[in-house]
Amino acid sequence: MSRKKAPKSVIKRLPVYLRILDNLIRRDVEVISSRGLSDETGFTAEQIRKDLAYFGAFGTRGTGYNTSYLRDKLMRIIGLDKKTRLVIVGAGYLGKALTRYNVLKNPYVDIVGVFDANPQEVGSEIEGIKIQSIEDIPEVLNKQNVKVAMITVPAEAAQKVVDSLISLGITAILNFAPTKLIVPRKVQVHNADLTIELQSLIYYVMEEEKEEKESRIQK
Amino acid sequence: MSRKKAPKSVIKRLPVYLRILDNLIRRDVEVISSRGLSDETGFTAEQIRKDLAYFGAFGTRGTGYNTSYLRDKLMRIIGLDKKTRLVIVGAGYLGKALTRYNVLKNPYVDIVGVFDANPQEVGSEIEGIKIQSIEDIPEVLNKQNVKVAMITVPAEAAQKVVDSLISLGITAILNFAPTKLIVPRKVQVHNADLTIELQSLIYYVMEEEKEEKESRIQK
Repeated sequence: MSRKKAPKSVIKRLPVYLRILDNLIRRDVEVISSRGLSDETGFTAEQIRKDLAYFGAFGTRGTGYNTSYLRDKLMRIIGLDKKTRLVIVGAGYLGKALTRYNVLKNPYVDIVGVFDANPQEVGSEIEGIKIQSIEDIPEVLNKQNVKVAMITVPAEAAQKVVDSLISLGITAILNFAPTKLIVPRKVQVHNADLTIELQSLIYYVMEEEKEEKESRIQK
Repeated sequence: MSRKKAPKSVIKRLPVYLRILDNLIRRDVEVISSRGLSDETGFTAEQIRKDLAYFGAFGTRGTGYNTSYLRDKLMRIIGLDKKTRLVIVGAGYLGKALTRYNVLKNPYVDIVGVFDANPQEVGSEIEGIKIQSIEDIPEVLNKQNVKVAMITVPAEAAQKVVDSLISLGITAILNFAPTKLIVPRKVQVHNADLTIELQSLIYYVMEEEKEEKESRIQK
């Protein structure tokens, strides 16, 4: 295992490649060049070749990548060829949406618990999974080896929830709470910010309106 | 307006800078260097200086950026100093979560309609906004100038919904449906993929487990 460790930015692009490959396979595209992958992803062909080279030699010079082969390799590299156990803490609308989405769409995910602080939510079911009280988290995590948690609690509750999860063995957190979490170095936190995409979209709408106004003035 | 047009990748980083600046201001940090911004964002200092230079000269050489000043400038550049009208189509768990989140947290957003195809949802309220039938979309969009839509309908319904929205004047779409949308060139689509962050997180968990196993074997 003397291979150079791939930086975080590369790892974040692997799921994008996977998504594109899924689309290509659905469209019966069997082979794609790094140039073709560039058109689909918006990353440069050179970037794509460099990214994939961290994990091995997958393409054929002058031909490109076999889409199914590369897809299977990426699934294994990311770790989606096995089920990953995870818990979801916070069963508001977003927690429920994520539970349903993962049960229906992500076969590589095994949701071993969905928890909420609200007694009125506890006991109700989403896609066959019963919502449990957050007080039951230690019991569930002590019984099973779980490393991954999704957090959809309110911002002001997030840090406390996360501290407790880390003390119970969680090492990877997908944080949907709009707050910055403080965690030990060995814990990975990815922040899923639903606002960032919206803001960059608003930028383009505003630009368009500005251009429209300017072209009207010029007339 | 001879300024060079900023590429999409730059525009996508502006909200990240904004988020970091908000955090810094909350921590009473008044000035930050591009180096400091680099530590907070993970982008290189050079990248940050280059990104911001598209929009003007905001820093002082040798000192850095005034956080409040840069924040206000970015708000204006992105277009968050005015309210943007938008509609949300799909009032399942995710649509409701987005409605609530935007009403409570995003003062620059004005949700003028939330729509769903399910008659059982129509008439119920989230944060004071009444869910309307998707059949009411044309009436609402004809009455008001709306350019932005968030789509949280099932994948198989998304294209039809989007075609209809575009015919009614929508030019910017934030798509949460797990499908690729086909739109005219002048329409902006941003795909918000809740799975991509999860997958790169799973990669790190798998890596960690591999390392643990290897270190056990070596013992």
